[in-house]
Amino acid sequence: MKLTIGVIGESETTPERYEFAYSVGREIARRGCVLVCGGMGGVMEAACKGASKEGGLTVGIVPGASGGDANPYVDVPIVTGMGHGRNVIVARSSNAIVAVGGNYGTLSEIAFALKLGIPIVGFHTWEVSSDIKKAKTPREAVDVAYSLARGGDRP
Amino acid sequence: MKLTIGVIGESETTPERYEFAYSVGREIARRGCVLVCGGMGGVMEAACKGASKEGGLTVGIVPGASGGDANPYVDVPIVTGMGHGRNVIVARSSNAIVAVGGNYGTLSEIAFALKLGIPIVGFHTWEVSSDIKKAKTPREAVDVAYSLARGGDRP
Amino acid sequence: MKLTIGVIGESETTPERYEFAYSVGREIARRGCVLVCGGMGGVMEAACKGASKEGGLTVGIVPGASGGDANPYVDVPIVTGMGHGRNVIVARSSNAIVAVGGNYGTLSEIAFALKLGIPIVGFHTWEVSSDIKKAKTPREAVDVAYSLARGGDRP
Amino acid sequence: MKLTIGVIGESETTPERYEFAYSVGREIARRGCVLVCGGMGGVMEAACKGASKEGGLTVGIVPGASGGDANPYVDVPIVTGMGHGRNVIVARSSNAIVAVGGNYGTLSEIAFALKLGIPIVGFHTWEVSSDIKKAKTPREAVDVAYSLARGGDRP
Repeated sequence: MKLTIGVIGESETTPERYEFAYSVGREIARRGCVLVCGGMGGVMEAACKGASKEGGLTVGIVPGASGGDANPYVDVPIVTGMGHGRNVIVARSSNAIVAVGGNYGTLSEIAFALKLGIPIVGFHTWEVSSDIKKAKTPREAVDVAYSLARGGDRP
Repeated sequence: MKLTIGVIGESETTPERYEFAYSVGREIARRGCVLVCGGMGGVMEAACKGASKEGGLTVGIVPGASGGDANPYVDVPIVTGMGHGRNVIVARSSNAIVAVGGNYGTLSEIAFALKLGIPIVGFHTWEVSSDIKKAKTPREAVDVAYSLARGGDRP
Repeated sequence: MKLTIGVIGESETTPERYEFAYSVGREIARRGCVLVCGGMGGVMEAACKGASKEGGLTVGIVPGASGGDANPYVDVPIVTGMGHGRNVIVARSSNAIVAVGGNYGTLSEIAFALKLGIPIVGFHTWEVSSDIKKAKTPREAVDVAYSLARGGDRP
Repeated sequence: MKLTIGVIGESETTPERYEFAYSVGREIARRGCVLVCGGMGGVMEAACKGASKEGGLTVGIVPGASGGDANPYVDVPIVTGMGHGRNVIVARSSNAIVAVGGNYGTLSEIAFALKLGIPIVGFHTWEVSSDIKKAKTPREAVDVAYSLARGGDRP
C-alpha cells in the first residue's frame, strides 16, 4: 500500500498560493507518495501539476458525475457524483493533509480530518485548532506531513 | 412541503446546552416545523425530546447502519450507513439551522451550510463566519431561524 | 419510532402502475406508516399522492441538491446531492419495501435491500430472487409488507 | 488521465473464479490500465493480485473507515466509510467493468453501471440485461472491456 498525502484548498486561488501548492505537489511526488485531492482547479490543480512534473501519481476525488470534470493533471479520477459530500472521502483517504488557503469546502475537510485524527499541515488556512501545524515553505509542509503520515496508522 | 429546521451540536453536552437544545426543539415544533438532526445523543437528543413534548415531528439522519441507533425521540430515522459523511445531508435537508455548541462534526455541518447558503443561528458554537447569527435564548434562536427559513428558497 | 414502508419504481410509468402505486400509498397511510421513497416522479409521485390523500406522512430522499426537485406530494425532502448514490439510503431507511415496475435504478435498490435483508414485495418488477414476494393487488402488497416490517428488526 | 477498468464480484469465491479474476487483473495491467475495485477479498483480491504481478496500479474503493481493511494487493485505498453505498463510486469510476460471479452487492454495481451506460463484460454473473457482454476467457473479457473503455467517453 502506498502512502497518500492529501492537498486541500480553494478552487480559485492567488498566484502565491498556486505556486505554493505546485511546489507541495512536487515534494509529495519526490517522496514517492500518492497525491490525493478533490480533483478540481486552483490549489488542487496546482498540486497535481507539480506532482506530474516529478512523475508522481495523482488521484482526484471529483464531486461531479464525470471524470472529465477533473483538472488535466489528475491521473486517476474517482467519480463520486456526491457533490460536496465527497469531501469526507478526500479526508479519509489521506494519511496526512496539506491545506493551502481554503474556503468553506476546505473547512469541511479540515473538520473531518480533525474529527478522524488525520494530521494537517496548513499554509494561510483556517485556524480552528492548535492541532493544525503551520508551515512556512512547501518543503517544510511536506516534510512534516510525510513524517506524520508515516508515523501514524491510517485512521 | 413542510419547513424543516436543523439542530446540530455535540453528542455529549453540558446540562446548560441540553436545556437550551430541548427548548429549541419545543419552539420548532410549536411553529409547525419538522426538526431535522443527526439522530444521535446530546444536543440532538435534547432537541428531539423537546419537539416530541410538543407533538412535533423529528427526523434523525443517522450515521450508522441501523435506525435502532437513533435516540428514542426520533420519529423517522433516515439510515445512511455513511458515518460522518451523513453530515452534508443534515445540512442540505434543513431550511435553516440552529447550532448549539459543537465539536468537529458540528464544524463540518456549519462549513457545509455556509458553503450552501443555508442560514445558521448559533449558541456557544464555532465562530468561523460573521454569517452565523448569534442568539441568547432558544426562542430568539428559533424566531430568527424560522424567519430565515421562510424567507429563503431551500438551497 | 414510526414504521416506514418504502415504495420504489420507475420515474416514468404506465397508467396501470401509477394507479397501483397510488393505492399502495393510500394503504400505507391507512396503517399509520411513513412512506419513504426517492422523491421523484412516476411510481414515487403516485405513492406520495395516495398517502397524502389519506393524510399520511411522505419522505422523499432526493438525488439532487434541492428539495424543490421533489414531487409535490413529498412532505419532508431529504436532500442528498448524491445522485443515484442515494438509492442505498432509500433501501436502508425502509422497514419493508414495495417495488412497482422499475428500471436499473430500482434494480440497484432491490439489490441493496436483498443484501441488507430488508423484505420486498413486488408488482411487475425485477425477478432476481425468490425472496421477493409477489402481490396481485395494492392491498395485498401492503398487507404483506406491513406484516414483514413489523415482524423484523430494522436492519 | 489513465484508463480505468473495474473488476467486481463476490468477496468469497470459488477457485475457478479466483483464477479467472487473477488473470483478468494481469490482462488489465498488461494494457496499462488502472484496476479499480471495491478493495475487499475474493474476486477483488484476485484481480488486484494479478495486476500487481504485472506491475500494474490497483485502486480499492473500500466500504469501511480504514484503508487497512483493503486486501494486501491494493496500492491506493480510497476510504469511503459508506458501507455498501460505495458501490456506486466503484461503477462511476470505471471506464468499463468486468464482472466475475457476484452476489447482491455486485448486482447493485451492475445496476448502476447499466443505468450510467458503463460497459460491462461478465463471466458467470447476473443476467439482467442483454447489454452485458459475455466472455469465456480472461483475455477475451479484458479485450472487450478495453475496447469499450477506449471507445466511449467516461460517463
